[in-house]
Amino acid sequence: MSPMPDRLDFSHDAGLRSWVASANAPDCDFPIQNLPVGVFRRAGSREGFRPGVAIGDQVVDLLAMRDAGLLPPEVAASLIGCERGELNAFMAQGRAARVALRHALSRSLLEGSAHQARLQPWLLVQAGAEYAVPCRIGDYTDFYTGIHHATAVGKLFRPDEPLLPNYKWVPIGYHGRSSSIGVSGQCFARPRGQTKGPNEAVPLLRPSHRLDYELELGVFVGQGNAPGEPIPIADAEGHAFGLVLLNDWSARDVQGWEYQPLGPFLAKSFATTLSPWIVTMEALAPFRAPFSRPPGDPQPLPYLDSEGNRAAGQIDVALEVLIQTQAMRDAGALPQRLSQSSYLGAYWTVAQMITHHTVNGCNLQPGDLLGTGTQSGPQPAQAGSLLELTAGGKNPLRLANGESRTFLQDGDAITLRGHCERSGFRRIGFGDCQGQVLAARV
Amino acid sequence: MSPMPDRLDFSHDAGLRSWVASANAPDCDFPIQNLPVGVFRRAGSREGFRPGVAIGDQVVDLLAMRDAGLLPPEVAASLIGCERGELNAFMAQGRAARVALRHALSRSLLEGSAHQARLQPWLLVQAGAEYAVPCRIGDYTDFYTGIHHATAVGKLFRPDEPLLPNYKWVPIGYHGRSSSIGVSGQCFARPRGQTKGPNEAVPLLRPSHRLDYELELGVFVGQGNAPGEPIPIADAEGHAFGLVLLNDWSARDVQGWEYQPLGPFLAKSFATTLSPWIVTMEALAPFRAPFSRPPGDPQPLPYLDSEGNRAAGQIDVALEVLIQTQAMRDAGALPQRLSQSSYLGAYWTVAQMITHHTVNGCNLQPGDLLGTGTQSGPQPAQAGSLLELTAGGKNPLRLANGESRTFLQDGDAITLRGHCERSGFRRIGFGDCQGQVLAARV
Repeated sequence: MSPMPDRLDFSHDAGLRSWVASANAPDCDFPIQNLPVGVFRRAGSREGFRPGVAIGDQVVDLLAMRDAGLLPPEVAASLIGCERGELNAFMAQGRAARVALRHALSRSLLEGSAHQARLQPWLLVQAGAEYAVPCRIGDYTDFYTGIHHATAVGKLFRPDEPLLPNYKWVPIGYHGRSSSIGVSGQCFARPRGQTKGPNEAVPLLRPSHRLDYELELGVFVGQGNAPGEPIPIADAEGHAFGLVLLNDWSARDVQGWEYQPLGPFLAKSFATTLSPWIVTMEALAPFRAPFSRPPGDPQPLPYLDSEGNRAAGQIDVALEVLIQTQAMRDAGALPQRLSQSSYLGAYWTVAQMITHHTVNGCNLQPGDLLGTGTQSGPQPAQAGSLLELTAGGKNPLRLANGESRTFLQDGDAITLRGHCERSGFRRIGFGDCQGQVLAARV
Repeated sequence: MSPMPDRLDFSHDAGLRSWVASANAPDCDFPIQNLPVGVFRRAGSREGFRPGVAIGDQVVDLLAMRDAGLLPPEVAASLIGCERGELNAFMAQGRAARVALRHALSRSLLEGSAHQARLQPWLLVQAGAEYAVPCRIGDYTDFYTGIHHATAVGKLFRPDEPLLPNYKWVPIGYHGRSSSIGVSGQCFARPRGQTKGPNEAVPLLRPSHRLDYELELGVFVGQGNAPGEPIPIADAEGHAFGLVLLNDWSARDVQGWEYQPLGPFLAKSFATTLSPWIVTMEALAPFRAPFSRPPGDPQPLPYLDSEGNRAAGQIDVALEVLIQTQAMRDAGALPQRLSQSSYLGAYWTVAQMITHHTVNGCNLQPGDLLGTGTQSGPQPAQAGSLLELTAGGKNPLRLANGESRTFLQDGDAITLRGHCERSGFRRIGFGDCQGQVLAARV
């Protein structure tokens, strides 16, 4: 694993421009250096979802590009099995297939490409598209790698010992619910659940009144591993396909009553929202950073340690959360930022999550999803959840329009955003991960 | 929901006999009154798995039966989509499709049936067949409905308060790992994991030395529900397809170190073993029993209570666990019984698990699997795990051949068995759920 792109790989050259003009705007999430993959269809249509790639404010239809003869044969072949809008078959092929697609798209979308005239008809403006979860997610695992989040949340319950003794040794994770994962634009009714107030004798079934978001990244698995064959850390990054933004909506009051002794269940399983575009490991290559432990912390056990992980295990993704309440929408006001953070603070890396997950022989499969856990920054204002920003609901947040929030209210829409920038490289972004809370079902 | 089969349903008549002679033996698990479904192929072949039904010591090939014109058109149509050995499309059709298949098979397999000559060539002896997980399991949830297990395990950690305050209110459950679920015959290497002994300063990665089984049943979901649309308890049984035996293999030492605060993860995700035949809700109909709470316990909250659930929410399945060590195999000795128990002791019913799972809007999908949790009986000797039978490893079990066990040793094979019997009805069984521990991978 290298922090810098392959020297033969021209695709990160900051000077590259696309004939899709919108891709060249400096703040565009999807320049020709990004080329994230997803599945899409024309908004409101009954068509099946199809594989696509984002460029500027457009989507490239990969199957149409293939059928028009604009993809090299081996790239065309790598998309077999993805026709129904599930990318698992492509994901299973690992890095070589991703790189080949990336290079083919770079060539076709480059300013001056001979493909422009034939490809132009197969672009769809993103504003006219809708998306789906880009693959069949066989299993979804949510980790807990945000140490600032774990510390802040732990403090609410255990002021003297916020981090449990295992935190700095084990990449803590738990199995999540796959069926209720959706993409940006997901709306869901406020969940009901059993909750019991501190002064109540018995629990009641009622709508959650401590509904929250969690700012996470998601890692899609590319190539899997066979049962009983753990993935050594030196090989782990080879099994990562790419990253998305992930909102792990959480009903804190449901969680507080249900989670002992087996962990979160209905507090999380009603909805999880992803950004629709998977930013590949190749696009992220320039934004890798060293991984190390703070002085005094234990070093990772040998199976979680490698030279490559130390040199460039981290990924520098700037993150932010925005809210738009119903009152803001009614007044035509833009979403307001709630916090900013970074993925650089993760206590465990992508490679460590993958290796730890398989060390017991558990098999990962192409399309499996790993959540990173909430990525709060070290400062209280950098928190990735309302639980932290409001100290468990004790300190309401004042919004610019005069409203205040402890937890989410009906109509609130939350948007996660993320981007990578580094001097000498073109900025890339993740697009929006937006979801909205509707009133509880009567 | 009725504790008795439909009066128009002849398929439970205890006098019914099949022309498959082995089905008429009194101790046979698969008489004509059972007719469980699964997927199979000839052992050792490279064929695809195909839908089948167990009868006596034989398997009926459902696609061959269809192609031979021996299934009514609507039954033949209900199998469309199952050709590749995944029954999800059939499961999604709910009770009516199951009943139609059951009746068609009853007629064809009945002593004197005109179909005998044409069907006979499409039987395969079970000893010559191998099986797979019968559907794509989108999500697997493991509940904790065995109150005697929860109490016994809780006592090991909290002698004064073995059951947590939420246990009698919330059907506790957690998300499990789908990818590592296998069928009877599953062999797996002893998992490695981080463990830390009470006198050790730091954890180490090593093979689990407290490896255990758990005696559970699994409930397959038939028809699902849409996101945001909870399943009321009165409708819940209509979403259950049928039951299997389930061994929730557990690495107790891994679990002890990793499970705070988010629950079991790698302690369970290396393997889970199912019996290959799904015993349908229709076959189980005569063995239903009333559900009630012991005096002094809280009544279920209204959303978990219904007349039907009270009248017949329980299912009377007799359960047992057997062990065969390597030494027993070498000596030609049969497996030895470790304990006997019953599903009647479950604190929460199938309907309550389904309704609770969806009350927050979570969507269940056809083929999802719900584990019941370990079904230990009220007496210590009726425990469904070694953790309980040996008091956490303190009291080794003495086996008949002179060996002893605290936890599982390499080469140990565990078999779960289950059956239903009731006066006036034909006994039905689940077949074996067997799995074996191999040595840890070097």
